[in-house]
Amino acid sequence: MPVDSRFFASVGAVTLGKWAEMTGATLMGNPEAEATGVSSSASAQAGDVCFYEGKPAEAAQISGQALACLVRPDAAEFLPEGVAALVCDAPRLAHVRASRAIYSPRPLTNPGEQIAENASIHPAAELGHGVVVGPNAAIGEGTRIGPGSVIGAGVQIGRNCRIGAHVSVQCSLLGDHVSLASGARIGEAGFGVIGTSTGAEDVPQLGRVILQDHVTVGANSTIDRGAFDDTIVGERSKIDNLCHIGHNVVMGRSVAIAAFSGISGSCIIGDGVQLGGRAGIADHVKLGPGARLAAASGVFRDVPAGETWGGVPARPIRDYMREVAWLSKQTKARKKDT
Amino acid sequence: MPVDSRFFASVGAVTLGKWAEMTGATLMGNPEAEATGVSSSASAQAGDVCFYEGKPAEAAQISGQALACLVRPDAAEFLPEGVAALVCDAPRLAHVRASRAIYSPRPLTNPGEQIAENASIHPAAELGHGVVVGPNAAIGEGTRIGPGSVIGAGVQIGRNCRIGAHVSVQCSLLGDHVSLASGARIGEAGFGVIGTSTGAEDVPQLGRVILQDHVTVGANSTIDRGAFDDTIVGERSKIDNLCHIGHNVVMGRSVAIAAFSGISGSCIIGDGVQLGGRAGIADHVKLGPGARLAAASGVFRDVPAGETWGGVPARPIRDYMREVAWLSKQTKARKKDT
Amino acid sequence: MPVDSRFFASVGAVTLGKWAEMTGATLMGNPEAEATGVSSSASAQAGDVCFYEGKPAEAAQISGQALACLVRPDAAEFLPEGVAALVCDAPRLAHVRASRAIYSPRPLTNPGEQIAENASIHPAAELGHGVVVGPNAAIGEGTRIGPGSVIGAGVQIGRNCRIGAHVSVQCSLLGDHVSLASGARIGEAGFGVIGTSTGAEDVPQLGRVILQDHVTVGANSTIDRGAFDDTIVGERSKIDNLCHIGHNVVMGRSVAIAAFSGISGSCIIGDGVQLGGRAGIADHVKLGPGARLAAASGVFRDVPAGETWGGVPARPIRDYMREVAWLSKQTKARKKDT
Repeated sequence: MPVDSRFFASVGAVTLGKWAEMTGATLMGNPEAEATGVSSSASAQAGDVCFYEGKPAEAAQISGQALACLVRPDAAEFLPEGVAALVCDAPRLAHVRASRAIYSPRPLTNPGEQIAENASIHPAAELGHGVVVGPNAAIGEGTRIGPGSVIGAGVQIGRNCRIGAHVSVQCSLLGDHVSLASGARIGEAGFGVIGTSTGAEDVPQLGRVILQDHVTVGANSTIDRGAFDDTIVGERSKIDNLCHIGHNVVMGRSVAIAAFSGISGSCIIGDGVQLGGRAGIADHVKLGPGARLAAASGVFRDVPAGETWGGVPARPIRDYMREVAWLSKQTKARKKDT
Repeated sequence: MPVDSRFFASVGAVTLGKWAEMTGATLMGNPEAEATGVSSSASAQAGDVCFYEGKPAEAAQISGQALACLVRPDAAEFLPEGVAALVCDAPRLAHVRASRAIYSPRPLTNPGEQIAENASIHPAAELGHGVVVGPNAAIGEGTRIGPGSVIGAGVQIGRNCRIGAHVSVQCSLLGDHVSLASGARIGEAGFGVIGTSTGAEDVPQLGRVILQDHVTVGANSTIDRGAFDDTIVGERSKIDNLCHIGHNVVMGRSVAIAAFSGISGSCIIGDGVQLGGRAGIADHVKLGPGARLAAASGVFRDVPAGETWGGVPARPIRDYMREVAWLSKQTKARKKDT
Repeated sequence: MPVDSRFFASVGAVTLGKWAEMTGATLMGNPEAEATGVSSSASAQAGDVCFYEGKPAEAAQISGQALACLVRPDAAEFLPEGVAALVCDAPRLAHVRASRAIYSPRPLTNPGEQIAENASIHPAAELGHGVVVGPNAAIGEGTRIGPGSVIGAGVQIGRNCRIGAHVSVQCSLLGDHVSLASGARIGEAGFGVIGTSTGAEDVPQLGRVILQDHVTVGANSTIDRGAFDDTIVGERSKIDNLCHIGHNVVMGRSVAIAAFSGISGSCIIGDGVQLGGRAGIADHVKLGPGARLAAASGVFRDVPAGETWGGVPARPIRDYMREVAWLSKQTKARKKDT
């Protein structure tokens, strides 16, 4: 999808010829075609340059919308019709470095400036002492923002929101009646690391956070912006303190998440899901609507709708309980024997 | 207990007639009686309106001090003598919505105001740049508050406290020699969610936090205020970074809690309890004095005084260790067989 | 090692005679010898006073560099040649209390002062609104600091760093290209508690944090300063949100640590180690270079270089997976039988 220019400055559209030059890749396609975005290979849309490092033959399955794809030589021929190939040896690293050259996060605020001149703040919004608002941000009617909070460049906040002290929001769009407790961190860069010959590098994070109406986020919780796409929290979802929602997570409505729970990148969480305290979910996992996780569970596989799972690795709660009881019985029996 | 007017504004005493009108409940009792507080059914005191959704016959066991109780039709007759019944189909939701209409948290501070005029700050207290102090707050002699910290309306802080940067404190009373590391969040709303026909709603949190003398709280840790009652941390208890103490927890003296530990709502933690890192305790659990939890344990049952437990679900540490060793031995044996 | 006077004020060098007087210990050594630092018994250097409470005969193994050591009567004779004995009944407590009397952390900033006059801020550094900088702090060329962040007294920050909103840094030295996301807490006091006859007391934390070039720290993560020595994060190590690095941890290069991971005090983490989400490591554990921990693992023993471990307590991942599978199979079989 196109990178949102409210949050990221760019050098503008970049021709595929220029992409080839920046990455050292060999272009199989039209050098004059203009790229207007970057994306993952699964979700590429028109104008996007993506990358692919999987099995060569499976390159056929990437999004056929992509304008171009950085690929290894042996995968180039398998790309869908109409997707230009940018052939190189390290596609992901090339994509990372070019993305970093093309897009850069706008600074939260202008140096030294408290309220940007062109910020749009409704007269019936209330700002605590020391609140800082970046350029092009907007704050709606009836919204209250606690002392010291920072609303970054381009952020849009709806009406009647309640924002505590020392909250920071960037690269985000918030609906109405959103509550953010003190110290919540909305829209920070997701955790992406790539190994290189000179050591680990951060992967640019060019997406956003969308918090729908009536979302509540607890104290010191963090919701990272997407890598390319958006991290989305659905209407009326309620998140406790010290939780973490990773990049690209898509969460449904009325989800309830207790303290210390963590949802790794790109998970899909259905409506009405409930997480006990300290539940953790590995990346790319799906929880069906109404699924429930017991406290302290760790999920590495998809959980079907309506089921309750527990344990690490999580399995259906009855299986988990049976295992716990059986193990206890075995060792108690042995204790008696001796 | 009465809602503390330093932290919550109210519409004043509300007659039971008015409660019936607000909730649509049928009143069995004196419509002129005045309610002065809200509470849980277990801890209701004189003047309080509570709610009950348990088994009808057990309604007899709620606090007989309550002025009135929202109950379902089949439980009304079992309420203790003298407790008026407010009969309706969804007592908890009715209680939530009426509470929200009657009480509202006072804003942390007045909009734009740095130090409230009527705040009482001892001349020998030291405030860092950007500290914000709300109306009616008090800060004692010799206390130092780091840059940017926010002391909310009505908060009382004793003498010789050490408060770091970007700390926020609300709805709280602090003793002397209390240390709060940077980013600690004291007195945020506890996590309470209720399902309704239109989705999840937040439950009002109308209690306080009490931190006794010499309590230490680590960086970015959170201690939520009670739902109706107080969250209490006893003298000389020491809490590490990134810990969470839920609403209504009552913690004794010299409790030590290592990083990432979490104590869910309404737990009772005895004097001298020690929690290893990432210990988690489910709600309403009691830990006897001197109990110890191994790192990474998850407790779902009461732990007797002086015992050490470990594992998830936690059990006595010897049982846990025996199970771990036995399981390892079984599978190693099988490995050899094959 | 000597306590860094940029971060801690001291009463100056203290003679062993004075140490004896302060602690009530009996000195076996030269009362005129001057102590210039405090340390643990393992890492004591010239001029340091340390303490020892282990088995008497093993007192011979403490650092022979120490100027003096607080010991129990039965261990005094075993100290290495040239280490003066300060004989008392509670060596650690005596050390704690004397350290507290001799050294005190400098306040983050002067009361009310935003930018200390003698702070050294490069003209090409950019500071957001409300940034506070303490005395003797230094901020390098091209570094950007987000709104409201607090840079404590004496802190040194290199070039081209990216620091978010509401970050606090104290007792720390940062290299170039360091990124700290919003709400990160660098250099807070580590968690040290000692029991006394009147209850728990905090142990002074007199070390520093060193973040080498290209280190990235996620939102609301915490890295505590050392107790006596330094907490060190090596070049290009990448730390996700809501992680905790305890006092005295020494971490190598290009280490990657996912959300909620915690490393307890004095661990040694080799180059290129990778931690899945919510991995926890008990204190004093060593992870060899290239070791990997599965998500949700809890490590209580050293992990050899290059190995992948999982589970709680963590063991080699194959053993762990075999146990999980075997347990599941046993209980499923029993289920069929019944």
